[in-house]
Amino acid sequence: MRIAVDAMGGDHAPHEIVKGCIEALDAYKTHDIDIVLVGQQQAIEDLLQGHAYDKSRLSIENALQVIGNDEKPVNAIKKKKDSSMMIGLQMLKEGKADAFISAGNTGALMAGALLKVGRIEGIDRPALAPVIPTAQGGSLLVDAGANIECKPENLMQFAVMGSVYMEKVLNVISPRIGLVNVGEEETKGNDVIQEAYGLIKSTHLNFIGNIEARDIPAGKADVIVCDGFVGNVILKLLEGIASSLFNILKQNILKSWRAKLGALLLMPTLKGLMKEWDYAEYGGALLLGIDGLVIKAHGSSDASAIKNAIKQADIFVSKGVLTQIRNEIVMIEDRSNEQ
Amino acid sequence: MRIAVDAMGGDHAPHEIVKGCIEALDAYKTHDIDIVLVGQQQAIEDLLQGHAYDKSRLSIENALQVIGNDEKPVNAIKKKKDSSMMIGLQMLKEGKADAFISAGNTGALMAGALLKVGRIEGIDRPALAPVIPTAQGGSLLVDAGANIECKPENLMQFAVMGSVYMEKVLNVISPRIGLVNVGEEETKGNDVIQEAYGLIKSTHLNFIGNIEARDIPAGKADVIVCDGFVGNVILKLLEGIASSLFNILKQNILKSWRAKLGALLLMPTLKGLMKEWDYAEYGGALLLGIDGLVIKAHGSSDASAIKNAIKQADIFVSKGVLTQIRNEIVMIEDRSNEQ
Repeated sequence: MRIAVDAMGGDHAPHEIVKGCIEALDAYKTHDIDIVLVGQQQAIEDLLQGHAYDKSRLSIENALQVIGNDEKPVNAIKKKKDSSMMIGLQMLKEGKADAFISAGNTGALMAGALLKVGRIEGIDRPALAPVIPTAQGGSLLVDAGANIECKPENLMQFAVMGSVYMEKVLNVISPRIGLVNVGEEETKGNDVIQEAYGLIKSTHLNFIGNIEARDIPAGKADVIVCDGFVGNVILKLLEGIASSLFNILKQNILKSWRAKLGALLLMPTLKGLMKEWDYAEYGGALLLGIDGLVIKAHGSSDASAIKNAIKQADIFVSKGVLTQIRNEIVMIEDRSNEQ
Repeated sequence: MRIAVDAMGGDHAPHEIVKGCIEALDAYKTHDIDIVLVGQQQAIEDLLQGHAYDKSRLSIENALQVIGNDEKPVNAIKKKKDSSMMIGLQMLKEGKADAFISAGNTGALMAGALLKVGRIEGIDRPALAPVIPTAQGGSLLVDAGANIECKPENLMQFAVMGSVYMEKVLNVISPRIGLVNVGEEETKGNDVIQEAYGLIKSTHLNFIGNIEARDIPAGKADVIVCDGFVGNVILKLLEGIASSLFNILKQNILKSWRAKLGALLLMPTLKGLMKEWDYAEYGGALLLGIDGLVIKAHGSSDASAIKNAIKQADIFVSKGVLTQIRNEIVMIEDRSNEQ
């Protein structure tokens, strides 16, 4: 398979992106993976110099422009047709790549993917779907920020796609679907959520009903369904707490010798824990509902995060996730037509 | 001052509530505080037996009924006029108490307070406003769940009330007001939030603009303004993470002797940290916008949380928080009428 990677997107592009690709080729030697780095050829070549890697598996697709993080998505994708992001998406569309990874501007990636690659038939609104760490491993958060406002049908489709993802990608049997609400009772929340509750209940999914946000870290649901505003708050609050909590712990530890010694002994455990809760370990978020494998890596991705996103792309392609989602959507539509 | 306490509300009522009141009388001996325990007289008397406390400062107001946590708020307050909650609110209305504390059904408390005590003039929708722990001490979250959907004017009023609270109660000079959004730019979010942005900006408040959820734990804003759905997600996610993270840490520590020893040495630091992040330490959440001091203590409040809520009520009364909010609202209305 061929994976295209946006060399110019993200806070640490292009050096960490290039480094991550080299590390991935080394780590997944036995996998059938070719990588195409999309971006400014000269810059990429300079970074590749001095590294040992299998040249038959890594190529460069030249792209002159770069879409910045602060650019307005719709403007950016219209004006910068020669950007690394748009050229990567074009490769995906033309079948020159099986998956595309970018750590760049999320809004532009979604808008560009919609324009170039389009939606899966039957899906009205694609969603950003990262795996978030929980006490039980990880849950899929759909939508994490692509759709600020949602209709009940959108939330139902998020549930369907999320269920297929967890089953096929993370091998969760009969994934538990939870709808984020302010209480567990069916009558809680606004009209949109109450209607979504009925729609999801009418599917064959393993719908466990409403979940409260306090149940998310414990891993009560495998798929967490919510609109993009709420999902964005959940995702960013998790990130913010992780960094604040470890900072506060560090400050407090430095205050006493006893605590310093304790922390030294505890370090391997804490490091393991931090790794479990580290977003880089989870790779990127699939743009769920786009008719092609587009993976959004975190904006602050380092080489290790990019390596994991490539591993993820490998899994998505190998397991035929896209085909599975397409089939599932058709099945659900057939059933509701029968009713 | 006289503080009425709902003896029957909360997961650990009545025993922890009664215990918390006795502890408060002991801890705040020099304060001018009388406590009235509202609830089933016999049950309360049984719990008081054997405890040493100043009988001149603690009395019981008999209430035959109890509003349960699962009851529908509007039904409950209509049917259970003789409940501890409704009788406590009635005392507040009649001036027989200066503040009322309950760890019971949040929805019923808000509905009952609206019915019995009413709103501050100029405030359309009261909000639940707990202090949440951050790296800089604490921020006020308005609204944490009372109003699932909000108009821009509601959010503006939350900002005004929150600013007065932080300034008068927690002595924060010129509190920084942040509006929860999916990005920092003024153009982010839905219409309600964009309009609220303009309204808050037009006040004299120290409005720092939109904040992302990742900035909340770091303490970027002193007052976090959002609708009750988003606020509820923030509050409950914070609670969920705190308990999950410490559980995971504990599990991991038990796996190795080295980690166990480290944890032992680190214990005082960890305990201090947990105390900083413990909701019980912050007392309860004021029903901001109700024309009387109604404090919602956490449903799982133990004696220590109730003691802290009483301390909080003492501060609210002493500092004349209610009068300050009333004056501030009048000022803002005068200014906007002048324009």
